[in-house]
Amino acid sequence: MDTKYDDSVLGRARVQDTPELEAYYAELNKLGAGALWTVANDIEPWEPRPSSVPMLWRYEDLRELVLKSSELVTPEQAGRRVVYLVNDKRRDVSAAVGWLYTGIQVTRPGESTSAHRHKASALRFIMEGEGGYTVVDSNKIMLEVNDFVITPNSTWHEHGVEEGGKTCIWQDGLDIPLVNALEANDYAVFDGKQPLEKPINYSPLTYGGAGLVPADQEWNKPYSPLFKYSWKQVYPALQDAAKVKEGSPFDGILMHYTNPVTGGHVMQTMGASIQMLRPGEHTKAHKHTGSFVYQCAKGKGYSIIGGKRFDWKERDIFCVPSWVYHEHVNLSETEDACLFSFNDLPVIESLGLYQEKAHPEGHQKIEQ
Amino acid sequence: MDTKYDDSVLGRARVQDTPELEAYYAELNKLGAGALWTVANDIEPWEPRPSSVPMLWRYEDLRELVLKSSELVTPEQAGRRVVYLVNDKRRDVSAAVGWLYTGIQVTRPGESTSAHRHKASALRFIMEGEGGYTVVDSNKIMLEVNDFVITPNSTWHEHGVEEGGKTCIWQDGLDIPLVNALEANDYAVFDGKQPLEKPINYSPLTYGGAGLVPADQEWNKPYSPLFKYSWKQVYPALQDAAKVKEGSPFDGILMHYTNPVTGGHVMQTMGASIQMLRPGEHTKAHKHTGSFVYQCAKGKGYSIIGGKRFDWKERDIFCVPSWVYHEHVNLSETEDACLFSFNDLPVIESLGLYQEKAHPEGHQKIEQ
Amino acid sequence: MDTKYDDSVLGRARVQDTPELEAYYAELNKLGAGALWTVANDIEPWEPRPSSVPMLWRYEDLRELVLKSSELVTPEQAGRRVVYLVNDKRRDVSAAVGWLYTGIQVTRPGESTSAHRHKASALRFIMEGEGGYTVVDSNKIMLEVNDFVITPNSTWHEHGVEEGGKTCIWQDGLDIPLVNALEANDYAVFDGKQPLEKPINYSPLTYGGAGLVPADQEWNKPYSPLFKYSWKQVYPALQDAAKVKEGSPFDGILMHYTNPVTGGHVMQTMGASIQMLRPGEHTKAHKHTGSFVYQCAKGKGYSIIGGKRFDWKERDIFCVPSWVYHEHVNLSETEDACLFSFNDLPVIESLGLYQEKAHPEGHQKIEQ
Amino acid sequence: MDTKYDDSVLGRARVQDTPELEAYYAELNKLGAGALWTVANDIEPWEPRPSSVPMLWRYEDLRELVLKSSELVTPEQAGRRVVYLVNDKRRDVSAAVGWLYTGIQVTRPGESTSAHRHKASALRFIMEGEGGYTVVDSNKIMLEVNDFVITPNSTWHEHGVEEGGKTCIWQDGLDIPLVNALEANDYAVFDGKQPLEKPINYSPLTYGGAGLVPADQEWNKPYSPLFKYSWKQVYPALQDAAKVKEGSPFDGILMHYTNPVTGGHVMQTMGASIQMLRPGEHTKAHKHTGSFVYQCAKGKGYSIIGGKRFDWKERDIFCVPSWVYHEHVNLSETEDACLFSFNDLPVIESLGLYQEKAHPEGHQKIEQ
Repeated sequence: MDTKYDDSVLGRARVQDTPELEAYYAELNKLGAGALWTVANDIEPWEPRPSSVPMLWRYEDLRELVLKSSELVTPEQAGRRVVYLVNDKRRDVSAAVGWLYTGIQVTRPGESTSAHRHKASALRFIMEGEGGYTVVDSNKIMLEVNDFVITPNSTWHEHGVEEGGKTCIWQDGLDIPLVNALEANDYAVFDGKQPLEKPINYSPLTYGGAGLVPADQEWNKPYSPLFKYSWKQVYPALQDAAKVKEGSPFDGILMHYTNPVTGGHVMQTMGASIQMLRPGEHTKAHKHTGSFVYQCAKGKGYSIIGGKRFDWKERDIFCVPSWVYHEHVNLSETEDACLFSFNDLPVIESLGLYQEKAHPEGHQKIEQ
Repeated sequence: MDTKYDDSVLGRARVQDTPELEAYYAELNKLGAGALWTVANDIEPWEPRPSSVPMLWRYEDLRELVLKSSELVTPEQAGRRVVYLVNDKRRDVSAAVGWLYTGIQVTRPGESTSAHRHKASALRFIMEGEGGYTVVDSNKIMLEVNDFVITPNSTWHEHGVEEGGKTCIWQDGLDIPLVNALEANDYAVFDGKQPLEKPINYSPLTYGGAGLVPADQEWNKPYSPLFKYSWKQVYPALQDAAKVKEGSPFDGILMHYTNPVTGGHVMQTMGASIQMLRPGEHTKAHKHTGSFVYQCAKGKGYSIIGGKRFDWKERDIFCVPSWVYHEHVNLSETEDACLFSFNDLPVIESLGLYQEKAHPEGHQKIEQ
Repeated sequence: MDTKYDDSVLGRARVQDTPELEAYYAELNKLGAGALWTVANDIEPWEPRPSSVPMLWRYEDLRELVLKSSELVTPEQAGRRVVYLVNDKRRDVSAAVGWLYTGIQVTRPGESTSAHRHKASALRFIMEGEGGYTVVDSNKIMLEVNDFVITPNSTWHEHGVEEGGKTCIWQDGLDIPLVNALEANDYAVFDGKQPLEKPINYSPLTYGGAGLVPADQEWNKPYSPLFKYSWKQVYPALQDAAKVKEGSPFDGILMHYTNPVTGGHVMQTMGASIQMLRPGEHTKAHKHTGSFVYQCAKGKGYSIIGGKRFDWKERDIFCVPSWVYHEHVNLSETEDACLFSFNDLPVIESLGLYQEKAHPEGHQKIEQ
Repeated sequence: MDTKYDDSVLGRARVQDTPELEAYYAELNKLGAGALWTVANDIEPWEPRPSSVPMLWRYEDLRELVLKSSELVTPEQAGRRVVYLVNDKRRDVSAAVGWLYTGIQVTRPGESTSAHRHKASALRFIMEGEGGYTVVDSNKIMLEVNDFVITPNSTWHEHGVEEGGKTCIWQDGLDIPLVNALEANDYAVFDGKQPLEKPINYSPLTYGGAGLVPADQEWNKPYSPLFKYSWKQVYPALQDAAKVKEGSPFDGILMHYTNPVTGGHVMQTMGASIQMLRPGEHTKAHKHTGSFVYQCAKGKGYSIIGGKRFDWKERDIFCVPSWVYHEHVNLSETEDACLFSFNDLPVIESLGLYQEKAHPEGHQKIEQ
């Protein structure tokens, strides 16, 4: 404990138990009440207190098990054929970190799921395969590796892989634990497949032009009208920025996926970012509120999170809990490395809860 | 279970355990993973699922115990001398309902607390006493019965009662459980008392004019510049509205306390409302997402919450959990009844999670 | 001309005419073109350049003529029986200052006008009389002296005085010259009187509570739902603010009438303010963009505008053009003086054109 | 005059002159006043009333004269070497249409201008040349044909062509007439050349990624951080949209250039759009408020504006005044045609003055 965080100072609860007080507490307890000073120091921590631990899930460990699921259960039986990743300290809420869920979904050529919707929002980052697609509110969108797609709150959605494609694997991210915690989730199944109302890829073809929006339509939904952020456009944008920017000391070249009609986060409860670590780059350490799930989209390196080293390469997934120091290293001296991440920043920011702190020494010591 | 909520339909997880699957689950478990279909139906409920139960705390039960706390501990020892009210199903997070904390604080004439601040936001509703005051970011504000005051996120605050006053009791409302759950709370103690920077009641005297804001200052903080909503202005506004409005079928004459420079909620994480039930009024039942804590500010009546009747009179406190049907009754045929309430609607709304449903039969049956 | 404003510097047009150039200009002229450098210095002035002059209209001069209009023409003939005030330099656009129109309207007991609407917005400030009313989009609102009321863009409106009332005179303010200049005005007549949809004074009785908005209705129109700002509430708010504020050095206690659901201006094209000059107060001089029309609501004093002294007392009307220095003086040592004003600040601000400059010496010298 | 627009109806001014009234008017006149009913029907038109006429400026007529300016005057003498285009009905305010100015600027290799700034905003659309650049607030940006660049309100700016480039010609668009009319323009010259603070093309390389914004910087200025909209990105976006959209019946595939951090117009006072007319497309006629200046960026065709046919091909410039019917025709059966345009829609929209009307018969008759 930092010496400045001393619960014996004026302004903290410093009451000693006595028999009289214990009798008093018992009386309160019978009325559905308690004495604040018995819990105050615990519920009013000096600094943000994460409940998760840093973890990394290696794709080479998981890939076979994910594929095996496609032999063990059908999409019809499973609803979604997904292996989910769970934080050692968040098993009670099925979260990978904080209130965020993540899983790895596999779909074989010719397979498709039924359509459903829920108050929880979802996003996907494509890991491998060909011919995958998602259908969001009757808009069918084709998926390629490293594409990022969204399935906002209450949109009907279903997925599949075309007959002639190759088995697709993607990472799902959802805020199910959060929406459950806020006692607001719901669920509905669509009767059959959604009819397609627009040509394929309508959303990215109409809203995917940089600095342009269609003049003949109004978008008043609280999420991005751009449902797919194509790696074919995203990676060149990172390269462009890297030509002229120093970038963040903590994150290299970091860009947020944004809603083109607001400049804000893609959805109300989850944001997502893409970042490039330049050859040999070792960022400085900082910590901030908000929970993050990363996937390595390109290259190899490691991150030091809460004093521990986590080595990653393409497709590995790891998490950074709220208020835990972290820094990133690209182990290649010649190639860039790219990290996709998603987070609960829209929640943290809209509720006024964001704060950030640079590591006082620049870098963490790695615990042995 | 409603017959339309049938987990055997396509789109829900319907996998039967087999030895092979159990072996598979064990393997996943070792890797910090699991099969989604083993938890999907649980974490994706058909409708919002509250974790709290409706409860009512009678002031006549609590008042003596609250006053007794002022004999048992000093403000210096306790930090805050507060009896908090805790939901039978939320004891783990010290919440009265959902993620909202509430307590009853007592301060005797001449007493005052030290100043502190935290990322959690706070509000107060004055129950009894004279000469009470709060100091928020160096602005001292005098308090009278039924006044509503705010202490937003990260503002320094302290309270007291003037030497010549009468013992003050007020209800505190905080979002501590929420901010802890979001792993974002912090705490700091002010070294001594805050210096007063403005004349007493500066905030309500400059921002308390209806439809007027001072032209010579900019307010860019994310909460209301009006720190006190005086019952002397609020009650006449309810009476005015009652002259010309039918009001809401579910709530009678219901008004939100608002930030005069945005028209929105008073703070980013908690909202508050005041409502008048006209003589004999019995509202219709509905349910919606969001958690609510009520205090009866005037009159007497009862509410039916989740099928149970809770009788209340002045100063009683009760709660309505998310997605639980509720309706209110004024038992007087001649006097109006007024209910103050605070809630987490700013959270629910900014995250896109609000939904509402009228009771199909208008009113609930009371469970015996 | 300030020496820093020298058109012989690099960056200004400094081309001398030659026969060759004159021939060139003639050729351009035939094609609907010209050489920019022949007009550049004129159309790119160093500082904002007003086209109006300061003026004051004394009520004692105008009142009899206004009343006389009620003998000369009927409301049916005149549409509106109004004497309008016109700036000596803006007669071509019928403006009192800049692009703002103002007039004085008289209505006798029992008279009423037909209803109409237009894209131009209107506002009124009540000067004398009893029993006056306005009907805005089917809401009837009673008017008293010094009340401020709005008739936003495209709302149906009509006015009258009850049979038992006293002749009413009020000041009208409109943005007709602006909306005409922007080539966007229109006009429609209502067939007969508007049916009343709400009880009398519905708007002020539901939206007139400080810091409160009705919870059961959504307001999504781009103007204030509060149609009347009652002097009975406004004057006490000024007095309250005067107790605790130093006020603006240029304006004393200045408050903007605001839309309670946004905190912004009452309408999209015109704002309005009320200000109190405390006994003996003499404000400092400044100038800023935006055009202003004032009416003295209480007391007596003078303003120095563009170096000229304009004495005013209750009901006198005067104007301050854009970018002209002005300062105000309350001539009473015991009574406060109050000035109502309306302006085009919403235009100036939303287009990014506001700027302000304090007089370098604090006060202007009065030109003789 | 439409029969529905009859000034003899109740609700319009219908007063006949009499000797008594004339005497009354003279008396008012002496006081800086007038009788509203003498001007009301004129200042309150039934429909929006444009003051400009449709015009087209053929580039083949103008190009030689524009180039000739570079022999007649130097940038140092002229400030800016520009031929401006002036509407036959707006010569008094040097406007091409409504309150919009446009001109054609020529710069020869090795030439550059000094830097200045003004409250008026500017934009440019590149017509021909190589090696042109603009420097906006110390950011140097290279220009290519059909690129669109902005110079917002109060940014320092200067232009030039690199030594090894080719003579550049571009269209300037400014709101000078509007900002002068609003009495808010100003002007300042920069002492020398702006120092470059960022690498060349910093703005488009950091903000030019579709659906991405840099995470490590805050943009809080009221205009787009993307200063250049490159034809290399814009034209493919039009092609993409044309694959999946029907487009607007009045405009074909029409997209607004937008501020990527707000989704709104690129600047506060002027917007800009790009549209594609597909081979053989003949749009329907409509009219709306707002003034527009077009440049043909690609292809050939004609527009019918206010009943007159205006033929255009690449680089021709034409205007559409407020509330004048217009429709566009692509004369090629095999190639698309593209029209760039800029407008005062941000003004019209933010002031609540937009309205639109489809032609009742779909198309206009061409007047002979």
